Formats: sequence, C-alpha cells, structure tokens
Amino acid sequence: MNNKCDIGVIGLAVMGQNLVLNINDCGFSAAVYNRTVSKVNKFLEDAAANRSTIIGAHSLEEFCNLLKRPRKVLLMIKAGSAVDEYIEKLLPFLEDGDCIIDGGNSFFKDTARRTNYLKEKGILFSGTGISGGEEGARRGPSILPGGNPQAWPLLKDIFQSICAKTPAGEPCCDWVGSDGAGHYVKMIHNGIEYGDMQLICEAYSLLKEALGMGYPQIAETFHNWNKTELDSFLIEITDKILRFKDDDGQIFLEKILDTAGQKGTGIWTSQSSFELGVPVTLITEAVYARGVSSRLDERIKASSILKGADAIPAYDKISMVEDIRKALLASKIISYAQGFMLMEAAAKEYSWNLDFGNIALLWREGCIIRSVFLDNIKDAFRKDADLQNLLFDDYFSRILADCQESWRRVVCAAVSSGIAAPAFCSALSFYDAYRCPRSSANLLQAQRDYFGAHTYERIDRPRGEFFHTDWAG
Amino acid sequence: MNNKCDIGVIGLAVMGQNLVLNINDCGFSAAVYNRTVSKVNKFLEDAAANRSTIIGAHSLEEFCNLLKRPRKVLLMIKAGSAVDEYIEKLLPFLEDGDCIIDGGNSFFKDTARRTNYLKEKGILFSGTGISGGEEGARRGPSILPGGNPQAWPLLKDIFQSICAKTPAGEPCCDWVGSDGAGHYVKMIHNGIEYGDMQLICEAYSLLKEALGMGYPQIAETFHNWNKTELDSFLIEITDKILRFKDDDGQIFLEKILDTAGQKGTGIWTSQSSFELGVPVTLITEAVYARGVSSRLDERIKASSILKGADAIPAYDKISMVEDIRKALLASKIISYAQGFMLMEAAAKEYSWNLDFGNIALLWREGCIIRSVFLDNIKDAFRKDADLQNLLFDDYFSRILADCQESWRRVVCAAVSSGIAAPAFCSALSFYDAYRCPRSSANLLQAQRDYFGAHTYERIDRPRGEFFHTDWAG
Repeated sequence: MNNKCDIGVIGLAVMGQNLVLNINDCGFSAAVYNRTVSKVNKFLEDAAANRSTIIGAHSLEEFCNLLKRPRKVLLMIKAGSAVDEYIEKLLPFLEDGDCIIDGGNSFFKDTARRTNYLKEKGILFSGTGISGGEEGARRGPSILPGGNPQAWPLLKDIFQSICAKTPAGEPCCDWVGSDGAGHYVKMIHNGIEYGDMQLICEAYSLLKEALGMGYPQIAETFHNWNKTELDSFLIEITDKILRFKDDDGQIFLEKILDTAGQKGTGIWTSQSSFELGVPVTLITEAVYARGVSSRLDERIKASSILKGADAIPAYDKISMVEDIRKALLASKIISYAQGFMLMEAAAKEYSWNLDFGNIALLWREGCIIRSVFLDNIKDAFRKDADLQNLLFDDYFSRILADCQESWRRVVCAAVSSGIAAPAFCSALSFYDAYRCPRSSANLLQAQRDYFGAHTYERIDRPRGEFFHTDWAG
Repeated sequence: MNNKCDIGVIGLAVMGQNLVLNINDCGFSAAVYNRTVSKVNKFLEDAAANRSTIIGAHSLEEFCNLLKRPRKVLLMIKAGSAVDEYIEKLLPFLEDGDCIIDGGNSFFKDTARRTNYLKEKGILFSGTGISGGEEGARRGPSILPGGNPQAWPLLKDIFQSICAKTPAGEPCCDWVGSDGAGHYVKMIHNGIEYGDMQLICEAYSLLKEALGMGYPQIAETFHNWNKTELDSFLIEITDKILRFKDDDGQIFLEKILDTAGQKGTGIWTSQSSFELGVPVTLITEAVYARGVSSRLDERIKASSILKGADAIPAYDKISMVEDIRKALLASKIISYAQGFMLMEAAAKEYSWNLDFGNIALLWREGCIIRSVFLDNIKDAFRKDADLQNLLFDDYFSRILADCQESWRRVVCAAVSSGIAAPAFCSALSFYDAYRCPRSSANLLQAQRDYFGAHTYERIDRPRGEFFHTDWAG
C-alpha cells in the first residue's frame, strides 16, 4: 500500500470514534483498531461509512503497518493498566522514533514513568489530556499534550488542526510540558470543573430554596448570567437543563436522583494539593460534597434527626439574585486562583516550565470549563508572567472588591437558612484567611510547643530561628 | 546474668527516656540502647541515675541478650526507613516468638507490611500509637497497640500499667486491631487534634477581633469554658498560654510568629479520607489552614490588595461569647463524627474489628485530645454498638439542636466581619448538607450526563438502574 495513514487510533468508544471523524474531516487519513475487532467493522460501515481515508485494521501488526513513519499511535482507551498492556503489545511493531500518544485521563505520575520507559526504547511517548467529552472530540476539543518534547513536532500539525479555536482563531492546543505535565494540567482542569459545577449547584439551591424561585425563573436567571462575566459552557447547559421537560411535561431534573458520581480526577487534584502543601480548599469541598450527596440513606435519616434553621428569612429577590451572581463569580475566582497556585507548586516540584497564560488559553474553548473568564486569566498572566497569585491581578482584585459584600450576604443567607453552600463558604474563608496579615496561628504554634516541644519562630527574630518555651513551668 | 529485663527500649530522645522511666516506675526492668551510644551512658548517669533495673547496652547484640524471652523490643525512633533498618539489624539476635513494637508515628500501611513481613520470620510485630507527647510518656500516655494479635498478651501487662487511666480507673490502652489498626487510630487522633486546635484558634480570633476582648478576658473565657462540655486538655492549655507573660511583662503569645508547622499525620488523615470516600471536611480545612498561615509573605501582600468587610458589626458581648462556645462545641461534634465515619470506613476496607466505644475510652486520658467529651462518645457507642453516625446519638443530636442557632449566628458574624473561620464554616456546611434529604446534586448529575454521558439514576426507579438523556437534542 502506497498511501499509508497519517495517524492511527486505538479504541473505538464514542470518544475515539469522534476523534477519528474529526481528524478525517481535517484532511488526515487514519487507521483504526479496537480490541473487540467487530467494532472496527461496525464503525467503518456505520459512522465512518464512505470515508476512504479511514482504514480498519484487525490486528496490531496490520494496524502498525498501515501507518506512515514515524508512526503516530493515539490510544483512546481506559486509563490504568490497559495503557501499559497496549504499550507492550505495540512495541514489537514499532521502530525508533515512532510515537505513542495516550489520550486518556491517565494519572500524571504514570505518564512520567511511561515517558521515561519508552524513551529508553527509542519511542516518543506523549501523555495528552483531551477535554470536551464526546461532543468536543467531534467538533474540536481542548488538547493538552505533554511527555517527550520530541513528540511535539510530530503531533503539532494534526492536533492544532483538530482542536478547538478561540474566537480570535488561536488553537486550544499547545505543548504543555515534559513527562506528566499534560495530564497534570488536564487533572487540574477536571478539579476546577468539579468546583465550577458545585458552585452552580449551590447558586441553584439558593435561588430555589432561599428565594423560592421556580424552574423557569431560575433558568432565566442562568440565561441572564451567561451574558455577564460568568459566560461559560457550564452556565449555558444549566440554563438548558432547567428548561428540559419530560414527555409528561414535568421538568426532567425533578426526576433525577441527587447522588453525585465521580471518576477520580477531582480526588487526584485534592491529593496533589496535600503532597505539595497548597490549600486548594474549594475543589476539595466540591469533591467532599459529592461524597455527602452519595450517602442518600444517611441524609434521609439525618433529616428527621438533625434540626435545621427555624425559618428562612425573607430576602429581596432582585437584589439577592444579583448578590448570588456576585458570590458565584467571587468564589469562582478563588477556585481558579487555587488551581493556578497548585500548578505553580507542581511546576516547581516536577521541573515543568508551565506557561500559565497559555494554559488559560488552551482551556478557553473546547473543554468543559470553557468560558470568557479564561480570557481574563490569560490576560493577567500575559501582562505579568511572574504574577504571584491570580488574586493580585488588578482585574480580579477589583472584581473581588466589588463582589465581597454581596458574597458575605449570600453566605450569611445560606447559613441562616440552613442551606448547605460549602464551596461558597470555603472560598470566602480562604479569601479572609489569605488577606489576613496576622492570623491566630501564633496560638496554634504555642499549643504545639506546649504539648509537643515543636518550637516556634518569633516576630522579633529572623525566620528560621526556632524557640521553645517551658510553658507549664 | 540471671535477672534479665522485662522489656528493651531503643531510642533515647526525650519521649523514649520518659517512657523508660515510666516503665521502671511501674516495677518493670528495662534494657536501653541508642544509636549514638554516648546517649546511653548519659541517660544512665543522669535521668536514670540510681535505678538499678535500667540497664544500658552498647550494641544490639548485648541489648537483645539482656532481655527475657520472649523478648519485647520497643522502638522509639523516627518513623520511616529507620524502622525497617532497625528491624533488619535486630533480626539476627531475635528468636521465634520475640516481639518488636514500633511506638512511633508510622504510616499504617507500613505497619501492615511490617506485621506480615515479620510474621513470616516468626517475630510478632506490633505497631503501637503512643500519644501524649513527652509529658504523657512520663506520666501515662494513651497507648494504641495494633499489629500481630499474638503480640498483645505479651504486652498487655506492661502497657496497661504505664498508660493513663480514666477517672474511673480504666486503662487508656487496649488492643485496637490487626496489622495497621493501632497506627491508623493514632493517625485519626492526630487529625482530630488538628481540628480541635483550629477550632480553638477560630474561637480565639472571634473573641479577639470581633468582640475586641483583651488577653485576660479571653483567658478567663477559656477558663470558664473548661468547666462546660468543652472540658479538655487543649482548652486548659489555651487558657494558660493566654496568661503566659514574657520577662518584660508582655503577653508572650504576641511574640510568636503566626506560621503553623505540621509533621504530616493530619495530611495522612485527609489523604485516607479521599481513598475511602469519606467527607472529613473539618480536619482537611484545618490542614489547609496551616498551609495558608505558612504563606506569610503572600498574606502580608494580600492584606494590602484584597478588600475586607467594611466594618465589624457591634455584638452583645455576653451573648456572643456563649454563641461562640456553642459554635465551638457543635463544630467539635461534627469533627469527631467525621473522624469516626472515617474509622468505620477504614475498618470495612482493611477488615479491622474496631470497637469505637473503646477507642473513645483510649483517648479519654493521656493524649492531646483528652476530654470529658470522649466519655459521651464512649457512652454513645456502648449504648448502640451499631450506631450509624455519632450525630444520630440522642446526646449529640440534642446538643446540636441546642447549639445550631448560635452556630449560625457565629458563622454569620465571622463572615460579616471578614474574620476567617474555615473550620466553623465547613462544619456547619457539612451539617446542613448531611441533613438535607433532597440536595442539588441532581443538577450536578444532569450536567455530567449532558457533557459526558455519565448517566444518572432516577427517583422513580430502583437504585442501580442508570439512564442517559440526549439533552442537546
């Protein structure tokens, strides 16, 4: 065969299928393979019918023989041991300088290990985060490639063709960094996604429970918010979900059980925050909130045992709706600031040269957290590449100053009404702790020194000098 | 030598020395060894002078030869690889049925590994949490032994002699469970300690900043609180710390830098909560709060950039002090409930037969979180060994009902005044989420299904049936 394929894709679940169609639409030929080989035929007869530049393979040997050199093999399979298994199965059919791309939600430390392992064998490995779900895969996802830097020149053309583009036409795909950097940044994306979703749910709770608004009104509120700084995919779909009716004319949302699932990348973000000592409080509260929601039987039992607020105070609806919008916006700023704090610590720890403005740009379109807001983050880091914290940027500190009184009123309203708003609360606690030049941690240090002789530093002595007091005498 | 020693202790830092003196005071003879051998001589000449039943050894061989069979070797050394190294060095001098006890703050998974490793070699290993700091070691610590159950009969007599006793005379030492259970329960103890300390710091902040109280008044407040349900070691030392003056007559606390340190067991608790999917929100916020405090330079910079509350509202001092006490008590109940939830999940995951009433008893005296409160927890689990959640116990649910309005007022006061109270806030958020029979997580599930086809369950269908909707049409 003379015309070998530009890229090969393994794994024909919907994400894989859609990526192949997207790749092909952009003018690239693709070989495809799937462990259950019947899926290959089905795909070629069905979704990929009449596309002569998508070629099916029925063995990995055949698949590898279909590819132009250096070969580019994109794995769209379940993260975990399956990736290692495919790597071993592919190796006999690959040659020096070929490239394997893992497009799944792999753990970044696995990606670092695989990058090094394959480098020794002469194979270029790229751990590439792909965000946007099935729809994004088809129409243009956000693509976050990392791994062996030598892989990037081989992938750039295809990936920057198939990815989402910003309104200004910039591709939402660029090299993120070495070894696990791409999957790490995808993990942070997912953690931030957990936070954004939790914040929207809390705003929804307050509109519904504290203000007593009906579904059409709440949908209209999100619709209006989507024309403000909150303009984003998740706000947009919330509006649509709130209007979606079942065949019987009822709001469909009413019929969905309130037990949230999770697949792990939110938890990874929290775990990384502990390893690196970064207070990513909002994402962690969002992860925990899903855990509380999943304890449905306990919640039902608790509702009859644990006493709530005596009454929900009456609020002025118009001003409180705007207060809730501002609380959501301010909390969202905290969440992103924490996410970037964590990436900064990771970049130091793992020696990645992350470009934070660029990362905001990569998330601007195609992915689940896509929003106008990310343009402002990009601008902040473009203006000052050494920006110590997103909260120190003029644009964001001004919004926080403008929102903070509303934010405080909303948290008080939630607390007074007995409506859980853990992400709003933790964001505000963080804000107030972070801007406190003299905290109560001196008492904590005194306690630690009292019972454990852990020592303390003094305000009137240089940092790094430690003292102990015999408190009990 | 005819009179061999009852136990041997390796590691003569203050904790080790104090334990040896305590053991000896209780009528047991002890052999001692230290890596830096000069410390052995110094100890025998100094703290252990004139004690003929404390014998020093200058090599591990000599040390092991000094011990009665089956030998009991207690390691009081730094957790980590040093424990593995000592195990290897000891093995040549030990015989079948001898026992090694690790009394440090080891990670529970290491303890499980060591228990199994040594079992294969015929050696009984016990990972034993010891709490109470230097003072507890000398006067009677809380002792939490786990590991190989066959070790317990060998250790029981000595450990139950040297440990703390409850006011009713019960020993604060009993077998906790197999492999890593003892160190796991010690880890939870330390996590709860993080929570308790953070709660006290937040109460102190509010008394000082929101009510403008001076140090003598605040000390007096803690002194009074120590006569209520809050009666505990940490409240007692807070009172003392607040009265402690420097040589120049100033309150000493003022001179201590507000950057909290940590040694890792709090973080382990949070990490375990993610592994087991248990929302331990309060301890995690306490861990993060230490992280925020340690970012001193950023906080100082942020204080000039980020805007705070316009003014601190005026509060009625007497009623607000009592509100703060109730907020502290209610938050503390949440923290302990979460800690016991986590232990319950761990017992299931690791097949430990934990007795929660007994664990409360073991913490009743000797350790840092010792308190009257733990008697009530013990009673709750003694009354109902299958108690699903501490919050469902009559005593605790009644206190929460009594405290919740105060708690809400205090959180609102903190939020309105711009005073960070992350642990108070997260405890209340958890309370309100946990007692909510119908949460907003249905919206979250709809979002996940919308963008990722993650499916959802329905309120009108059995659990375990999953549905997907084509939301975008």
